[in-house]
Amino acid sequence: MRIDIITVLPELLRSPFEASIMKRAIDKGLVEVHFHNLRDYTTNKQKNVDDYQFGGGAGMVMMIQPIDDCIAKLKSERNYDEIIYMTPDGETLNQGMANQMSSLENIIILCGHYKGVDQRVRDHLITKEISIGDYVLSGGELGAIVLSDALIRLIPGVLSDETSALTDSFQDNLLSPPIYTRPSDYKGWKVPDILLSGHFAKIDQWREDKAFEHTKNRRPDLLED
Amino acid sequence: MRIDIITVLPELLRSPFEASIMKRAIDKGLVEVHFHNLRDYTTNKQKNVDDYQFGGGAGMVMMIQPIDDCIAKLKSERNYDEIIYMTPDGETLNQGMANQMSSLENIIILCGHYKGVDQRVRDHLITKEISIGDYVLSGGELGAIVLSDALIRLIPGVLSDETSALTDSFQDNLLSPPIYTRPSDYKGWKVPDILLSGHFAKIDQWREDKAFEHTKNRRPDLLED
Repeated sequence: MRIDIITVLPELLRSPFEASIMKRAIDKGLVEVHFHNLRDYTTNKQKNVDDYQFGGGAGMVMMIQPIDDCIAKLKSERNYDEIIYMTPDGETLNQGMANQMSSLENIIILCGHYKGVDQRVRDHLITKEISIGDYVLSGGELGAIVLSDALIRLIPGVLSDETSALTDSFQDNLLSPPIYTRPSDYKGWKVPDILLSGHFAKIDQWREDKAFEHTKNRRPDLLED
Repeated sequence: MRIDIITVLPELLRSPFEASIMKRAIDKGLVEVHFHNLRDYTTNKQKNVDDYQFGGGAGMVMMIQPIDDCIAKLKSERNYDEIIYMTPDGETLNQGMANQMSSLENIIILCGHYKGVDQRVRDHLITKEISIGDYVLSGGELGAIVLSDALIRLIPGVLSDETSALTDSFQDNLLSPPIYTRPSDYKGWKVPDILLSGHFAKIDQWREDKAFEHTKNRRPDLLED
Protein backbone atom coordinates (compact mmCIF):
# COMPACT_ATOMS: atom_id res chain seq x y z
CA MET A 1 0.00 0.00 0.00
CA ARG A 2 1.09 3.56 -0.72
CA ILE A 3 -0.39 6.42 1.33
CA ASP A 4 0.11 10.05 0.24
CA ILE A 5 -0.86 12.53 2.92
CA ILE A 6 -1.52 16.15 1.90
CA THR A 7 -1.17 18.56 4.80
CA VAL A 8 -0.19 22.04 5.93
CA LEU A 9 1.58 20.50 8.95
CA PRO A 10 3.86 17.65 7.85
CA GLU A 11 5.93 18.07 11.03
CA LEU A 12 2.89 17.16 13.13
CA LEU A 13 2.61 13.78 11.41
CA ARG A 14 6.15 12.59 11.88
CA SER A 15 6.55 10.74 15.20
CA PRO A 16 3.64 8.28 14.93
CA PHE A 17 5.05 7.03 11.62
CA GLU A 18 8.54 6.72 13.12
CA ALA A 19 7.57 4.35 15.93
CA SER A 20 5.92 1.03 16.61
CA ILE A 21 3.82 -0.85 14.06
CA MET A 22 3.78 1.83 11.35
CA LYS A 23 7.56 2.14 11.42
CA ARG A 24 7.91 -1.64 11.25
CA ALA A 25 5.56 -1.85 8.26
CA ILE A 26 7.46 0.91 6.45
CA ASP A 27 10.85 -0.67 7.27
CA LYS A 28 9.62 -4.03 5.95
CA GLY A 29 8.57 -2.35 2.69
CA LEU A 30 4.93 -3.35 3.21
CA VAL A 31 3.75 0.25 3.06
CA GLU A 32 5.06 3.57 1.73
CA VAL A 33 3.94 6.81 3.34
CA HIS A 34 4.67 10.22 1.79
CA PHE A 35 3.86 13.63 3.21
CA HIS A 36 3.13 16.54 0.86
CA ASN A 37 3.29 20.09 2.18
CA LEU A 38 0.49 22.14 0.62
CA ARG A 39 2.62 25.27 0.85
CA ASP A 40 4.86 23.80 -1.85
CA TYR A 41 1.90 24.01 -4.25
CA THR A 42 0.71 27.59 -3.73
CA THR A 43 0.96 29.93 -6.70
CA ASN A 44 0.24 33.16 -4.81
CA LYS A 45 3.12 35.38 -3.76
CA GLN A 46 2.39 35.16 -0.02
CA LYS A 47 2.50 31.34 -0.07
CA ASN A 48 -0.95 31.37 1.57
CA VAL A 49 -2.92 28.14 1.64
CA ASP A 50 -6.01 29.64 3.30
CA ASP A 51 -8.22 32.70 3.00
CA TYR A 52 -11.34 34.29 4.53
CA GLN A 53 -14.80 32.77 4.05
CA PHE A 54 -17.09 34.17 1.40
CA GLY A 55 -20.13 35.55 3.18
CA GLY A 56 -18.22 36.33 6.38
CA GLY A 57 -17.73 34.35 9.57
CA ALA A 58 -14.94 33.22 11.87
CA GLY A 59 -12.22 30.85 10.73
CA MET A 60 -10.09 30.48 7.62
CA VAL A 61 -10.83 28.18 4.67
CA MET A 62 -8.26 26.12 2.77
CA MET A 63 -8.08 27.26 -0.87
CA ILE A 64 -8.76 24.91 -3.77
CA GLN A 65 -5.77 25.83 -5.98
CA PRO A 66 -2.87 24.26 -4.01
CA ILE A 67 -4.96 21.16 -3.24
CA ASP A 68 -6.00 20.75 -6.86
CA ASP A 69 -2.42 21.11 -8.08
CA CYS A 70 -1.02 18.66 -5.51
CA ILE A 71 -3.66 16.02 -6.27
CA ALA A 72 -3.20 16.53 -10.03
CA LYS A 73 0.55 15.96 -9.72
CA LEU A 74 0.07 12.75 -7.72
CA LYS A 75 -2.59 11.46 -10.13
CA SER A 76 -0.24 12.10 -13.05
CA GLU A 77 2.24 9.70 -11.43
CA ARG A 78 -0.03 6.74 -10.58
CA ASN A 79 -3.64 5.66 -10.21
CA TYR A 80 -5.35 6.14 -6.88
CA ASP A 81 -8.11 3.93 -5.48
CA GLU A 82 -9.45 6.68 -3.25
CA ILE A 83 -8.84 10.36 -2.59
CA ILE A 84 -9.94 10.73 1.00
CA TYR A 85 -10.83 13.86 2.94
CA MET A 86 -10.75 13.59 6.74
CA THR A 87 -13.72 15.55 8.11
CA PRO A 88 -16.04 15.20 11.13
CA ASP A 89 -19.06 15.03 8.81
CA GLY A 90 -17.64 12.17 6.71
CA GLU A 91 -18.60 8.49 6.94
CA THR A 92 -17.66 7.25 10.42
CA LEU A 93 -14.69 4.89 10.33
CA ASN A 94 -15.34 1.41 11.72
CA GLN A 95 -13.48 -1.89 11.65
CA GLY A 96 -15.44 -3.19 8.65
CA MET A 97 -14.39 -0.16 6.57
CA ALA A 98 -10.81 -0.58 7.77
CA ASN A 99 -10.82 -4.25 6.73
CA GLN A 100 -12.11 -3.38 3.25
CA MET A 101 -9.75 -0.46 2.75
CA SER A 102 -6.66 -2.35 3.95
CA SER A 103 -6.43 -4.07 0.56
CA LEU A 104 -6.27 -0.83 -1.47
CA GLU A 105 -3.09 -0.10 -3.43
CA ASN A 106 -2.76 3.70 -3.48
CA ILE A 107 -4.66 6.26 -1.47
CA ILE A 108 -4.42 10.00 -0.94
CA ILE A 109 -5.47 11.44 2.41
CA LEU A 110 -6.19 15.18 2.48
CA CYS A 111 -6.04 16.74 5.94
CA GLY A 112 -8.37 19.65 6.53
CA HIS A 113 -7.24 22.40 8.86
CA TYR A 114 -8.68 25.71 10.09
CA LYS A 115 -12.45 25.61 9.34
CA GLY A 116 -11.94 23.07 6.54
CA VAL A 117 -11.51 23.11 2.78
CA ASP A 118 -13.36 25.03 0.08
CA GLN A 119 -16.49 23.03 -0.70
CA ARG A 120 -15.48 22.74 -4.37
CA VAL A 121 -12.58 20.48 -3.29
CA ARG A 122 -15.11 18.11 -1.74
CA ASP A 123 -17.52 18.33 -4.68
CA HIS A 124 -14.99 17.79 -7.47
CA LEU A 125 -11.72 16.27 -6.20
CA ILE A 126 -12.53 13.94 -3.31
CA THR A 127 -13.85 10.39 -3.72
CA LYS A 128 -14.45 9.49 -0.06
CA GLU A 129 -15.00 11.49 3.14
CA ILE A 130 -14.11 9.83 6.43
CA SER A 131 -14.59 10.83 10.06
CA ILE A 132 -12.85 9.04 12.92
CA GLY A 133 -15.62 10.00 15.36
CA ASP A 134 -18.23 12.55 16.47
CA TYR A 135 -15.82 15.13 17.84
CA VAL A 136 -13.87 18.03 16.43
CA LEU A 137 -10.06 18.03 16.29
CA SER A 138 -7.71 20.87 15.48
CA GLY A 139 -6.94 19.30 12.10
CA GLY A 140 -7.35 16.31 9.85
CA GLU A 141 -3.77 15.24 10.54
CA LEU A 142 -4.81 13.25 13.61
CA GLY A 143 -7.52 11.56 11.58
CA ALA A 144 -4.98 10.72 8.88
CA ILE A 145 -2.68 9.13 11.47
CA VAL A 146 -5.53 7.10 12.97
CA LEU A 147 -6.80 5.94 9.57
CA SER A 148 -3.28 5.01 8.42
CA ASP A 149 -2.63 3.00 11.58
CA ALA A 150 -6.00 1.21 11.40
CA LEU A 151 -5.28 0.15 7.80
CA ILE A 152 -1.57 -0.58 8.05
CA ARG A 153 -1.84 -3.01 10.96
CA LEU A 154 -4.24 -5.14 8.89
CA ILE A 155 -1.84 -5.57 5.97
CA PRO A 156 -0.62 -9.20 5.98
CA GLY A 157 2.85 -9.47 7.45
CA VAL A 158 2.72 -6.26 9.48
CA LEU A 159 1.72 -7.79 12.82
CA SER A 160 4.12 -10.48 13.95
CA ASP A 161 1.31 -12.86 14.86
CA GLU A 162 -1.63 -12.64 12.51
CA THR A 163 -4.05 -14.27 14.89
CA SER A 164 -3.40 -11.31 17.14
CA ALA A 165 -5.35 -8.98 14.82
CA LEU A 166 -8.08 -11.55 14.20
CA THR A 167 -8.92 -11.81 17.91
CA ASP A 168 -9.17 -8.03 18.38
CA SER A 169 -12.35 -6.34 19.47
CA PHE A 170 -14.94 -5.81 16.67
CA GLN A 171 -13.54 -8.49 14.32
CA ASP A 172 -16.46 -10.79 15.25
CA ASN A 173 -18.77 -8.01 16.51
CA LEU A 174 -17.78 -8.92 20.07
CA LEU A 175 -15.61 -6.97 22.46
CA SER A 176 -12.56 -8.81 23.81
CA PRO A 177 -12.82 -10.89 26.98
CA PRO A 178 -10.69 -9.85 30.00
CA ILE A 179 -7.01 -10.75 29.86
CA TYR A 180 -4.52 -11.33 32.66
CA THR A 181 -0.80 -11.86 33.06
CA ARG A 182 1.59 -12.50 35.94
CA PRO A 183 1.57 -12.30 38.87
CA SER A 184 -1.51 -14.45 39.56
CA ASP A 185 -1.97 -12.60 42.85
CA TYR A 186 -1.18 -8.87 43.03
CA LYS A 187 -1.93 -7.23 46.37
CA GLY A 188 -4.72 -9.75 46.88
CA TRP A 189 -6.27 -9.08 43.45
CA LYS A 190 -6.38 -12.54 41.87
CA VAL A 191 -6.56 -13.94 38.37
CA PRO A 192 -9.72 -16.07 37.82
CA ASP A 193 -8.98 -19.72 38.72
CA ILE A 194 -10.21 -21.02 35.38
CA LEU A 195 -7.33 -19.31 33.53
CA LEU A 196 -4.80 -21.16 35.71
CA SER A 197 -6.57 -24.51 35.33
CA GLY A 198 -4.93 -25.72 32.11
CA HIS A 199 -8.35 -26.86 30.76
CA PHE A 200 -8.11 -25.10 27.41
CA ALA A 201 -11.57 -26.10 26.17
CA LYS A 202 -13.08 -24.66 29.35
CA ILE A 203 -10.93 -21.55 29.03
CA ASP A 204 -12.19 -21.00 25.47
CA GLN A 205 -15.77 -21.34 26.65
CA TRP A 206 -15.15 -18.94 29.55
CA ARG A 207 -13.63 -16.38 27.20
CA GLU A 208 -16.55 -16.67 24.77
CA ASP A 209 -19.04 -16.21 27.61
CA LYS A 210 -17.13 -13.22 29.00
CA ALA A 211 -16.84 -11.58 25.57
CA PHE A 212 -20.57 -11.96 25.05
CA GLU A 213 -21.42 -10.72 28.54
CA HIS A 214 -19.04 -7.74 28.23
CA THR A 215 -20.50 -6.81 24.82
CA LYS A 216 -24.06 -7.13 26.17
CA ASN A 217 -23.22 -4.80 29.08
CA ARG A 218 -21.19 -2.22 27.23
CA ARG A 219 -22.24 -2.27 23.59
CA PRO A 220 -25.55 -4.09 23.08
CA ASP A 221 -25.79 -2.29 19.71
CA LEU A 222 -23.00 -4.53 18.34
CA LEU A 223 -25.09 -7.65 19.01
CA GLU A 224 -28.06 -6.28 17.05
CA ASP A 225 -26.24 -6.24 13.71
CA MET B 1 -5.33 21.52 32.67
CA ARG B 2 -2.56 19.01 33.32
CA ILE B 3 -2.46 15.79 31.29
CA ASP B 4 -0.16 12.92 32.33
CA ILE B 5 0.19 10.26 29.67
CA ILE B 6 1.49 6.82 30.67
CA THR B 7 2.93 4.89 27.74
CA VAL B 8 5.49 2.36 26.56
CA LEU B 9 6.14 4.57 23.50
CA PRO B 10 6.70 8.20 24.55
CA GLU B 11 8.61 8.88 21.31
CA LEU B 12 5.45 8.10 19.30
CA LEU B 13 3.56 10.87 21.07
CA ARG B 14 5.99 13.69 20.51
CA SER B 15 5.30 15.46 17.19
CA PRO B 16 1.56 16.11 17.57
CA PHE B 17 2.24 17.93 20.84
CA GLU B 18 5.04 19.95 19.23
CA ALA B 19 2.92 21.48 16.47
CA SER B 20 -0.20 23.50 15.87
CA ILE B 21 -2.88 24.06 18.50
CA MET B 22 -1.48 21.76 21.18
CA LYS B 23 1.94 23.40 21.00
CA ARG B 24 0.33 26.84 21.19
CA ALA B 25 -1.72 25.87 24.25
CA ILE B 26 1.38 24.46 25.97
CA ASP B 27 3.46 27.53 25.06
CA LYS B 28 0.75 29.82 26.46
CA GLY B 29 0.80 27.87 29.73
CA LEU B 30 -2.87 26.87 29.33
CA VAL B 31 -2.07 23.18 29.50
CA GLU B 32 0.79 21.00 30.74
CA VAL B 33 1.41 17.62 29.14
CA HIS B 34 3.82 15.08 30.64
CA PHE B 35 4.81 11.71 29.22
CA HIS B 36 5.72 8.85 31.56
CA ASN B 37 7.62 5.86 30.22
CA LEU B 38 6.29 2.69 31.84
CA ARG B 39 9.71 1.06 31.52
CA ASP B 40 10.98 3.47 34.17
CA TYR B 41 8.60 1.82 36.65
CA THR B 42 9.37 -1.88 36.14
CA THR B 43 10.88 -3.73 39.08
CA ASN B 44 11.83 -6.89 37.18
CA LYS B 45 15.42 -7.37 36.01
CA GLN B 46 14.54 -7.60 32.33
CA LYS B 47 12.68 -4.23 32.37
CA ASN B 48 9.69 -6.01 30.86
CA VAL B 49 6.35 -4.22 30.86
CA ASP B 50 4.40 -7.09 29.29
CA ASP B 51 4.05 -10.85 29.65
CA TYR B 52 2.12 -13.83 28.21
CA GLN B 53 -1.59 -14.26 28.81
CA PHE B 54 -2.78 -16.62 31.51
CA GLY B 55 -4.75 -19.37 29.81
CA GLY B 56 -2.81 -19.08 26.54
CA GLY B 57 -3.50 -17.14 23.36
CA ALA B 58 -1.74 -14.77 20.98
CA GLY B 59 -0.55 -11.34 22.06
CA MET B 60 1.18 -9.93 25.12
CA VAL B 61 -0.53 -8.30 28.09
CA MET B 62 0.71 -5.21 29.94
CA MET B 63 1.54 -6.06 33.56
CA ILE B 64 -0.14 -4.35 36.49
CA GLN B 65 2.97 -3.60 38.60
CA PRO B 66 4.60 -0.80 36.55
CA ILE B 67 1.21 0.80 35.87
CA ASP B 68 0.20 0.67 39.53
CA ASP B 69 3.52 2.17 40.64
CA CYS B 70 3.40 4.97 38.04
CA ILE B 71 -0.19 5.92 38.91
CA ALA B 72 0.58 5.74 42.64
CA LYS B 73 3.53 8.11 42.23
CA LEU B 74 1.42 10.63 40.27
CA LYS B 75 -1.45 10.41 42.77
CA SER B 76 0.98 11.09 45.61
CA GLU B 77 1.86 14.40 43.94
CA ARG B 78 -1.61 15.79 43.18
CA ASN B 79 -5.30 14.88 42.93
CA TYR B 80 -6.63 13.58 39.64
CA ASP B 81 -10.16 14.07 38.35
CA GLU B 82 -10.00 11.01 36.13
CA ILE B 83 -7.62 8.14 35.43
CA ILE B 84 -8.50 7.23 31.88
CA TYR B 85 -7.73 4.06 29.94
CA MET B 86 -7.90 4.31 26.15
CA THR B 87 -9.51 1.11 24.84
CA PRO B 88 -11.78 0.23 21.90
CA ASP B 89 -14.40 -1.15 24.32
CA GLY B 90 -14.57 2.05 26.39
CA GLU B 91 -17.27 4.73 26.22
CA THR B 92 -17.18 6.24 22.74
CA LEU B 93 -15.84 9.80 22.74
CA ASN B 94 -18.18 12.46 21.40
CA GLN B 95 -18.26 16.25 21.46
CA GLY B 96 -20.51 16.39 24.53
CA MET B 97 -18.01 14.33 26.53
CA ALA B 98 -15.16 16.49 25.23
CA ASN B 99 -17.01 19.65 26.31
CA GLN B 100 -17.55 18.28 29.83
CA MET B 101 -14.03 16.96 30.22
CA SER B 102 -12.38 20.15 28.94
CA SER B 103 -12.95 21.79 32.35
CA LEU B 104 -11.10 19.07 34.33
CA GLU B 105 -7.94 20.08 36.19
CA ASN B 106 -5.74 16.97 36.21
CA ILE B 107 -6.15 13.78 34.23
CA ILE B 108 -4.05 10.67 33.65
CA ILE B 109 -4.33 8.87 30.33
CA LEU B 110 -3.04 5.28 30.25
CA CYS B 111 -2.23 4.00 26.77
CA GLY B 112 -2.78 0.29 26.23
CA HIS B 113 -0.49 -1.53 23.85
CA TYR B 114 -0.08 -5.11 22.63
CA LYS B 115 -3.36 -6.94 23.50
CA GLY B 116 -4.12 -4.46 26.29
CA VAL B 117 -3.63 -4.26 30.05
CA ASP B 118 -4.16 -6.82 32.79
CA GLN B 119 -7.87 -6.68 33.68
CA ARG B 120 -7.02 -5.87 37.31
CA VAL B 121 -5.69 -2.49 36.17
CA ARG B 122 -9.12 -1.73 34.71
CA ASP B 123 -11.00 -3.11 37.72
CA HIS B 124 -9.00 -1.33 40.43
CA LEU B 125 -6.99 1.61 39.10
CA ILE B 126 -8.96 3.19 36.24
CA THR B 127 -11.89 5.58 36.72
CA LYS B 128 -12.98 6.04 33.07
CA GLU B 129 -12.53 4.00 29.88
CA ILE B 130 -12.70 5.86 26.58
CA SER B 131 -12.72 4.73 22.96
CA ILE B 132 -12.21 7.13 20.07
CA GLY B 133 -14.17 4.87 17.70
CA ASP B 134 -15.18 1.35 16.66
CA TYR B 135 -11.85 0.32 15.19
CA VAL B 136 -8.64 -1.17 16.51
CA LEU B 137 -5.37 0.74 16.53
CA SER B 138 -1.86 -0.49 17.25
CA GLY B 139 -1.90 1.26 20.62
CA GLY B 140 -3.70 3.66 22.91
CA GLU B 141 -1.17 6.39 22.13
CA LEU B 142 -3.17 7.56 19.10
CA GLY B 143 -6.30 7.66 21.24
CA ALA B 144 -4.45 9.70 23.85
CA ILE B 145 -3.36 12.21 21.20
CA VAL B 146 -6.90 12.50 19.81
CA LEU B 147 -8.48 12.88 23.26
CA SER B 148 -5.87 15.47 24.31
CA ASP B 149 -6.42 17.51 21.15
CA ALA B 150 -10.23 17.35 21.44
CA LEU B 151 -10.03 18.66 25.03
CA ILE B 152 -7.21 21.17 24.68
CA ARG B 153 -8.76 23.09 21.79
CA LEU B 154 -11.85 23.74 23.95
CA ILE B 155 -9.91 25.35 26.80
CA PRO B 156 -10.70 29.09 26.78
CA GLY B 157 -7.88 31.07 25.20
CA VAL B 158 -6.44 28.22 23.15
CA LEU B 159 -8.17 29.01 19.86
CA SER B 160 -7.51 32.54 18.73
CA ASP B 161 -11.16 33.14 17.91
CA GLU B 162 -13.51 31.47 20.34
CA THR B 163 -16.49 31.64 18.05
CA SER B 164 -14.49 29.43 15.75
CA ALA B 165 -14.93 26.45 18.08
CA LEU B 166 -18.56 27.29 18.81
CA THR B 167 -19.53 27.07 15.14
CA ASP B 168 -17.84 23.67 14.62
CA SER B 169 -19.77 20.59 13.62
CA PHE B 170 -21.65 18.85 16.49
CA GLN B 171 -21.76 21.88 18.82
CA ASP B 172 -25.45 22.36 18.02
CA ASN B 173 -26.07 18.79 16.80
CA LEU B 174 -25.79 20.05 13.22
CA LEU B 175 -22.99 19.44 10.75
CA SER B 176 -21.34 22.55 9.34
CA PRO B 177 -22.71 24.20 6.18
CA PRO B 178 -20.44 24.35 3.09
CA ILE B 179 -17.71 27.00 3.12
CA TYR B 180 -15.95 28.74 0.27
CA THR B 181 -13.03 31.07 -0.26
CA ARG B 182 -11.35 32.80 -3.19
CA PRO B 183 -11.37 32.61 -6.13
CA SER B 184 -15.12 32.88 -6.70
CA ASP B 185 -14.70 31.03 -9.99
CA TYR B 186 -12.13 28.23 -10.23
CA LYS B 187 -12.04 26.40 -13.56
CA GLY B 188 -15.74 27.18 -13.97
CA TRP B 189 -16.64 25.84 -10.49
CA LYS B 190 -18.45 28.77 -8.88
CA VAL B 191 -19.20 29.91 -5.36
CA PRO B 192 -22.99 30.14 -4.70
CA ASP B 193 -24.22 33.66 -5.58
CA ILE B 194 -25.84 34.18 -2.18
CA LEU B 195 -22.42 34.18 -0.45
CA LEU B 196 -21.25 37.04 -2.69
CA SER B 197 -24.47 39.04 -2.22
CA GLY B 198 -23.58 40.94 0.98
CA HIS B 199 -27.07 40.19 2.43
CA PHE B 200 -25.87 38.82 5.75
CA ALA B 201 -29.31 37.92 7.10
CA LYS B 202 -29.99 35.90 3.95
CA ILE B 203 -26.55 34.32 4.18
CA ASP B 204 -27.23 33.24 7.78
CA GLN B 205 -30.54 31.71 6.70
CA TRP B 206 -28.88 29.93 3.75
CA ARG B 207 -26.19 28.50 6.06
CA GLU B 208 -28.77 27.31 8.55
CA ASP B 209 -30.79 25.62 5.80
CA LYS B 210 -27.68 24.02 4.33
CA ALA B 211 -26.48 22.77 7.72
CA PHE B 212 -29.87 21.19 8.38
CA GLU B 213 -30.09 19.69 4.88
CA HIS B 214 -26.52 18.32 5.11
CA THR B 215 -27.21 16.81 8.54
CA LYS B 216 -30.46 15.26 7.31
CA ASN B 217 -28.64 13.68 4.36
CA ARG B 218 -25.54 12.49 6.12
CA ARG B 219 -26.35 12.05 9.78
CA PRO B 220 -30.12 11.94 10.42
CA ASP B 221 -29.30 10.30 13.78
CA LEU B 222 -27.99 13.64 15.08
CA LEU B 223 -31.39 15.26 14.50
CA GLU B 224 -33.20 12.60 16.54
CA ASP B 225 -31.50 13.49 19.83
